[in-house]
Amino acid sequence: MRHTRPSILITGGLIAVLAASPLAPAQEPFRQVLISVSRDTDPNLIFRSNTASRDAVPECPVAWSVRKVRLTGGKQEGVDIVRVDNGKMQITLIPTRGMGIQMVTLEGKRILGWDSPIREVVHPSFINLLSRGGQGWLEGFNEWLCRCGMEWNGSPGIDRFVNSAGEETTMDLTLHGRIANLPAQEVLLIAERKPPYRITIRGRVDERILYGAKLELTTELSTVPGSREFAVRDAVTNRGGQRQEFEMLYHTNFGPPLLEEGSKLLAPVETVTPLSGDSARDVERYDQFLGPTPGFAAQVYGIKPLADASGRTLVLLRNKAGDLGASMRYATRELPFLTVWKNTVGREDGYVVGIEPGTNFPNNRRVERKHGRVPSLPPGASHFMTIEYAVHSGAEAVEGAAGQVARIQGDRRPLINEKPEKSE
Amino acid sequence: MRHTRPSILITGGLIAVLAASPLAPAQEPFRQVLISVSRDTDPNLIFRSNTASRDAVPECPVAWSVRKVRLTGGKQEGVDIVRVDNGKMQITLIPTRGMGIQMVTLEGKRILGWDSPIREVVHPSFINLLSRGGQGWLEGFNEWLCRCGMEWNGSPGIDRFVNSAGEETTMDLTLHGRIANLPAQEVLLIAERKPPYRITIRGRVDERILYGAKLELTTELSTVPGSREFAVRDAVTNRGGQRQEFEMLYHTNFGPPLLEEGSKLLAPVETVTPLSGDSARDVERYDQFLGPTPGFAAQVYGIKPLADASGRTLVLLRNKAGDLGASMRYATRELPFLTVWKNTVGREDGYVVGIEPGTNFPNNRRVERKHGRVPSLPPGASHFMTIEYAVHSGAEAVEGAAGQVARIQGDRRPLINEKPEKSE
Amino acid sequence: MRHTRPSILITGGLIAVLAASPLAPAQEPFRQVLISVSRDTDPNLIFRSNTASRDAVPECPVAWSVRKVRLTGGKQEGVDIVRVDNGKMQITLIPTRGMGIQMVTLEGKRILGWDSPIREVVHPSFINLLSRGGQGWLEGFNEWLCRCGMEWNGSPGIDRFVNSAGEETTMDLTLHGRIANLPAQEVLLIAERKPPYRITIRGRVDERILYGAKLELTTELSTVPGSREFAVRDAVTNRGGQRQEFEMLYHTNFGPPLLEEGSKLLAPVETVTPLSGDSARDVERYDQFLGPTPGFAAQVYGIKPLADASGRTLVLLRNKAGDLGASMRYATRELPFLTVWKNTVGREDGYVVGIEPGTNFPNNRRVERKHGRVPSLPPGASHFMTIEYAVHSGAEAVEGAAGQVARIQGDRRPLINEKPEKSE
Repeated sequence: MRHTRPSILITGGLIAVLAASPLAPAQEPFRQVLISVSRDTDPNLIFRSNTASRDAVPECPVAWSVRKVRLTGGKQEGVDIVRVDNGKMQITLIPTRGMGIQMVTLEGKRILGWDSPIREVVHPSFINLLSRGGQGWLEGFNEWLCRCGMEWNGSPGIDRFVNSAGEETTMDLTLHGRIANLPAQEVLLIAERKPPYRITIRGRVDERILYGAKLELTTELSTVPGSREFAVRDAVTNRGGQRQEFEMLYHTNFGPPLLEEGSKLLAPVETVTPLSGDSARDVERYDQFLGPTPGFAAQVYGIKPLADASGRTLVLLRNKAGDLGASMRYATRELPFLTVWKNTVGREDGYVVGIEPGTNFPNNRRVERKHGRVPSLPPGASHFMTIEYAVHSGAEAVEGAAGQVARIQGDRRPLINEKPEKSE
Repeated sequence: MRHTRPSILITGGLIAVLAASPLAPAQEPFRQVLISVSRDTDPNLIFRSNTASRDAVPECPVAWSVRKVRLTGGKQEGVDIVRVDNGKMQITLIPTRGMGIQMVTLEGKRILGWDSPIREVVHPSFINLLSRGGQGWLEGFNEWLCRCGMEWNGSPGIDRFVNSAGEETTMDLTLHGRIANLPAQEVLLIAERKPPYRITIRGRVDERILYGAKLELTTELSTVPGSREFAVRDAVTNRGGQRQEFEMLYHTNFGPPLLEEGSKLLAPVETVTPLSGDSARDVERYDQFLGPTPGFAAQVYGIKPLADASGRTLVLLRNKAGDLGASMRYATRELPFLTVWKNTVGREDGYVVGIEPGTNFPNNRRVERKHGRVPSLPPGASHFMTIEYAVHSGAEAVEGAAGQVARIQGDRRPLINEKPEKSE
Repeated sequence: MRHTRPSILITGGLIAVLAASPLAPAQEPFRQVLISVSRDTDPNLIFRSNTASRDAVPECPVAWSVRKVRLTGGKQEGVDIVRVDNGKMQITLIPTRGMGIQMVTLEGKRILGWDSPIREVVHPSFINLLSRGGQGWLEGFNEWLCRCGMEWNGSPGIDRFVNSAGEETTMDLTLHGRIANLPAQEVLLIAERKPPYRITIRGRVDERILYGAKLELTTELSTVPGSREFAVRDAVTNRGGQRQEFEMLYHTNFGPPLLEEGSKLLAPVETVTPLSGDSARDVERYDQFLGPTPGFAAQVYGIKPLADASGRTLVLLRNKAGDLGASMRYATRELPFLTVWKNTVGREDGYVVGIEPGTNFPNNRRVERKHGRVPSLPPGASHFMTIEYAVHSGAEAVEGAAGQVARIQGDRRPLINEKPEKSE
């Protein structure tokens, strides 16, 4: 199998070059189709498949495995998950829910994830995005990393805009768009046969309609065996013949052990703004988190992060003791806005904090357009977004990451707005 | 496998005691997981499984069987049904539709059930509860026993209420809530190894959302091999951290042979009230049923039943000849309101009568709250409801049941209200 | 297996007579159940089955095959398709989408079909007909032949009407109704054992609701091995006990190679009327098609076709060179209205023209009722519709078909209305 779009992704292009070389046949990566809309899928692999490094890439010194399982029972019936075990971390992807990441465990212990009141991995056919006044999305939401988009994300409600035919039109948008409830068309495992023996899961998710958006997500999750790091490299491509708006938000959700009373967000900040009236009074504490607080009303803050000389920012969540952290590094040009969602309610109600890089803030698209935060793509063009994730274990590692955040901030003082921006 | 919640259900508690006894290891009940969200489900059992007493409990003198089948074709594709044959009666449960009961046959002949125009057991993924002005529920409704709830039941329309964050809010409720279109997370067969060799199907159905209700139904259907009786023992539990309203209605629907011109409802009645203007003129005949009447406009009556000294009522539907009957016995404290839904339309249109014990009448929750009929549960608390069903064959058996109803009524005269209560 | 409704379909009746003859046991057609709601379906045949003439009807001189496949991946997961290869043409039916026809290839090359931006065969459980203001249907639309109906078709929006209980009511209709997103209950292959060895796929699709329509589609697609022709014979039957309205539109969609700049519609026309204001200015060119035109705003025209002495019309789409054509022949009594939908947008956006025989024009049912174009059926009655399709290869064949169209037109002059009819 060859690359269909070698120009989109940097690693893809690199592999394509290697694969095309007649001198390196043994180094062509191992590939296995996990899910495909092709009619030649082996029916024996529909319910489960398992790939182990000892068979696929015996030369890799760290044993890894990739397992696809179709879940059964309740609302998860028919959901496919892909579990990547890099020998150190276990990353569970959900192709059936837009290639989200359910959770990440480190040597079997959950490190990235949260305890949503929704306990199954819900199949999109059980979700009605229109229910509860456009908030049906909440009935399936329990991922660590849940994409919001691609045509829109943010609050439900009426958007008024000019469509591609030049007509003024309205659309009743649902919370956070459709991508988390769209299944992947293609999922492919690619494993390099030479150091660093990188494992990649590549997926494609279509969000297409006649008389509307034709957006395509190409996503790669990759990790090096034995590491505590992984990266997500996404491209959103406009496959239609007209210019098309899009919005992407990486709704990344942390519960214990990273979230606890006294956990803190460390981020290089240009400005912080409360995104709702209720959030305004606590804006000075936007970066501090409470323990489980039954009845807590959610607060949301919008951050413009600062970047280093290479254009990248680093955002760190660390626990109270300062000996456990998780960080995201990404280019602010690709994802200029960062949202902090504090939902530190009681444990039974979903104690969680979201740290959410995006192309925009999660207001209704109508509001975001007014503020100039809705990007668009000409026909055939792509927007690329890469986020590098790392888990930091031990005080030294956490301090190292915190120091990098501080260096990006330098002597620039964050501007903290006490009032929300006008929403209309 | 041990009981997860021995405190909830009386039989569960009893069995747990026995099971814990070191003197009675051979008497620990037989158990088999039929459906589970556990990832260790045997894929060979996804499509069908069969348990027979000769293998499971050979000491039982009456042969019974429990069969799980995944249906195929049309809108029933993917629906799991569980058919319990107690040697005399056959009870068909629908885990995929909230553990409802499709029908009950006596020696192969349908005795409890009706001929809905919807002929398949419809998978929830084909139902859009919002369609037809919030009446999409009607596209899947054909069970003998269909639960309505748990967050709400009754007529569709806007409810205004104060949410757990203390804010005034509105929600557009759909007809009869979600439980009948939610699949069970766990289904377990438990068969006792000693007299009376009771067979139990235990199920769990979650109705959970972030920022809303976290309700859990635990249900047990049990029957003694060879009997004409069975019981449903339900618990609705609030798994959230805030007080939560709930509503439950057991929409129990009778067609032929029990329903025919001249069939009659026998119930000990404190009050009867028409629930709609159209029903008012026939309120005196609330307990009498017509034959199939094309074009009949449905009538609905609300009853407050009387109870005996033990707090339980008995409700009986008997055929015209008085030689066939079906009864329900339950505590009015658990289910204080009884609704009679007369839909004696033509056979092709769904000739049926519903006899529906509930925590409330099936008005919109907004109306029921105004009348003080919407119960609520503090965090972690459960509401228990047990209904015992029996089929009475022959005039003597029917008269015996009718006599019990009369004894509960005693010399108390039913109050028949000629006008509906004010709905707003 | 016997015919369940031999009276409905002419070929069905004929076969039943043969099958009942004791003199012709060997000529009883070959039959195979492909999909059924019966509980005795062989689970081995759920995922794929294949029938070849060499096994089923070895006496047939032209090799044919019928293959059922369950698709996997993305939004097509769980969709069943049936591919009929008559030895010359390959016709792909979609039981899971109301027995629509995805496409037709001639010796492997697509001749009937189009390149919708929706590239999978979308499972109905991924479609929410209510989304995008009632236009969710557009998220699954990519068939060559997509039925619109049965309870209604046409534009979304509120319909006001008197229901079967005599009450004035309203209903918010969704675009083009439900039939294309309803799975077939029964699909049967019937293959004749004597000349012309006709192959038939018979299906049944229910569209039933309590308190509403109980409509049933019985459809037969049949073709003679080795031919370039096939026929669709449909019956819509009212299975309810009350008179019931219905609407049927055969949304037949052509892309390349038949559609190109200079392609033309040849139809015998009584009147042509623009169905929207935007379409009015180009009404004189209602029968001419553009090449792909990015940003083109769709135009729709309503035709009353003329019929020949037998009551049938012939409608032909031919390419620019006049050496390739596709025609439909049908009775105007059965399908009196013909809609032309020009959506000659850019290729990426779904370059297509729809030629759509119907019982009505695709306005909202409210509008169609006002114009007397909504038929109804008494209880138990059926409306029959037969369309014969042919592919014409080569200038001579195309000219032959064009000549037939011209003969039906004769010297009758089409009336071209310059303005749309009043819609309200």
